[in-house]
Amino acid sequence: MKKFVNDPKAFVAEMLQGIAWANEDRLRYVPELNLIARADAPSADKVTIIQGSGSGHEPAHVLAVGRGMLDGACPGDVFAAPPMNSVYETARLLRSDRGVLLLVNNYTGDRMAFEMAAELLAAEGIDVRTLFIDDDVSVQDSTYTVGRRGVAGNFFVIKAVGAAAEDGADLDELVRIGERVNSATRTMGIALTPCTPPAKGSPLFELGPDEIEIGVGIHGEPGRRRGKLLPADDLVDEMLEPVLADLPYQAGDRVALMINGLGGTPIGELYVLYRRAHERLRESGIDVGRSYVGEYCTSLDMAGASVTLVRLDDEIEQLLAAPADTGLRIF
Amino acid sequence: MKKFVNDPKAFVAEMLQGIAWANEDRLRYVPELNLIARADAPSADKVTIIQGSGSGHEPAHVLAVGRGMLDGACPGDVFAAPPMNSVYETARLLRSDRGVLLLVNNYTGDRMAFEMAAELLAAEGIDVRTLFIDDDVSVQDSTYTVGRRGVAGNFFVIKAVGAAAEDGADLDELVRIGERVNSATRTMGIALTPCTPPAKGSPLFELGPDEIEIGVGIHGEPGRRRGKLLPADDLVDEMLEPVLADLPYQAGDRVALMINGLGGTPIGELYVLYRRAHERLRESGIDVGRSYVGEYCTSLDMAGASVTLVRLDDEIEQLLAAPADTGLRIF
Repeated sequence: MKKFVNDPKAFVAEMLQGIAWANEDRLRYVPELNLIARADAPSADKVTIIQGSGSGHEPAHVLAVGRGMLDGACPGDVFAAPPMNSVYETARLLRSDRGVLLLVNNYTGDRMAFEMAAELLAAEGIDVRTLFIDDDVSVQDSTYTVGRRGVAGNFFVIKAVGAAAEDGADLDELVRIGERVNSATRTMGIALTPCTPPAKGSPLFELGPDEIEIGVGIHGEPGRRRGKLLPADDLVDEMLEPVLADLPYQAGDRVALMINGLGGTPIGELYVLYRRAHERLRESGIDVGRSYVGEYCTSLDMAGASVTLVRLDDEIEQLLAAPADTGLRIF
Repeated sequence: MKKFVNDPKAFVAEMLQGIAWANEDRLRYVPELNLIARADAPSADKVTIIQGSGSGHEPAHVLAVGRGMLDGACPGDVFAAPPMNSVYETARLLRSDRGVLLLVNNYTGDRMAFEMAAELLAAEGIDVRTLFIDDDVSVQDSTYTVGRRGVAGNFFVIKAVGAAAEDGADLDELVRIGERVNSATRTMGIALTPCTPPAKGSPLFELGPDEIEIGVGIHGEPGRRRGKLLPADDLVDEMLEPVLADLPYQAGDRVALMINGLGGTPIGELYVLYRRAHERLRESGIDVGRSYVGEYCTSLDMAGASVTLVRLDDEIEQLLAAPADTGLRIF
């Protein structure tokens, strides 16, 4: 294993400390809860939005904390759901009188932690709602999931509800918006290589020298099938076809198109994928209204990528275009 | 080689087409010059700023094109300087009556192409200046370089002169600012793995299972020495020490701190490096005024990272903080 790591057991804590120090004016770190929170949270003016999930998917979700997106993110260890108690204490710490929205990628462990925490919070009279994200069209059930998995499309749900919350939307309205965006969003990914968790020190699964995993999950879970490495354009078509057919996205639609790198794939290759995806959509009469290319939801050092489409309407497009100031930044 | 690529010979052209389509409102692509330009360039109101270099360093420099940074970038093929003729034609196409500033990372091939182009342009009466960037403290001369190499610190020069040009600075003023930023900037990098150019199909160099290259160049050129993989904090100290000693940066200084990923290193690991770099600077009495963590100047799929410091003063800090709207974007 060749990684920048000290004690693998301290990997998540050190990463979170680094994130907080790199964003001293925006974010704070609460070590005992594994929590990254907005420096100014909670705000009495807005519903509190919290996301949890395993670590190892950075920038998801700890770097999506900030104005216009999340109030807090309480990750678990690498590829592990946060403990129920972290979710519960995070929500208590950051709760606003306007309520708390919990965003959860659909994995069994995460669902359990968040549903139990939500029950406890509700029993204390806190107005809490939970919203599950399940944009991955690859498989119906999987290693850690009943139902579809939540993957990179999650970014769009966070962005939309975050913008609406900033504008003063109430909890019911945020749930309505989040469900609308989730229902308009579909993703599929391909792995070229496995990933290596720091504490394991060896690859999570194996792929042959020219073998790829089509429909891979963001924890390296199996997808639809293994196949041979093909030219980039063919792989884009292979990802886009089930995505397009699922909603379905149709001629005349306007979409957001995301090419998401899974961690080990360089940016140049992502734009080669983008080129074909954009061309393929245009051939289908679908207009790309917004584009996103880069790393949004990764799987440690996995080489690979996913394609996400979001069907846009005026409401969703305005929320996606709204300003945000988070740990996700370049300048 | 497991990469998202079609015909390796078409890799750069397809990437540039993807970049232009993903930024239709900001950027345009001129295939015959391998050029990415601002959609609205040239502007009569500002000096034109152009950067070239080899491809394979994305987001540098093609994604740094846009308002507040570059007017155009004319990359060569992967790790190859742009042809002199591309530089010349790019400058003629994008020139403004206020002049043209050519930014060049210090490599022999790039210097030759840009210096010859600048001579031709000057002979035609175009007001052109050339500014060389050489922030890498690792080695004095190297495989492709006489003098020091230009690496990730380049971002800060582009950002500063881009902001000043937007504010109306003239060509002399931009050269002064660019030289000041370059002279305040130092970088050092470490490779954990080699990189694989698409057209070569195999790694450019070899490293043993626990071997690293300390002071690596962004084309995989040798650095100071090879060593054993060490804990992340030790590697940060190993990079920071020669950087700190070189300017030198001293107690009481205020700096921008960049942890730049070289292409294959996941974001989480970059924040582990950031944590130690921030702590180490604080121990030295140096204040981190601005922080940058992510991929700014890569070496294809190389796993590795570099550390850059910029000594800030009011002028530099204001220019770095100015708004920009380029292909470097998340939302």
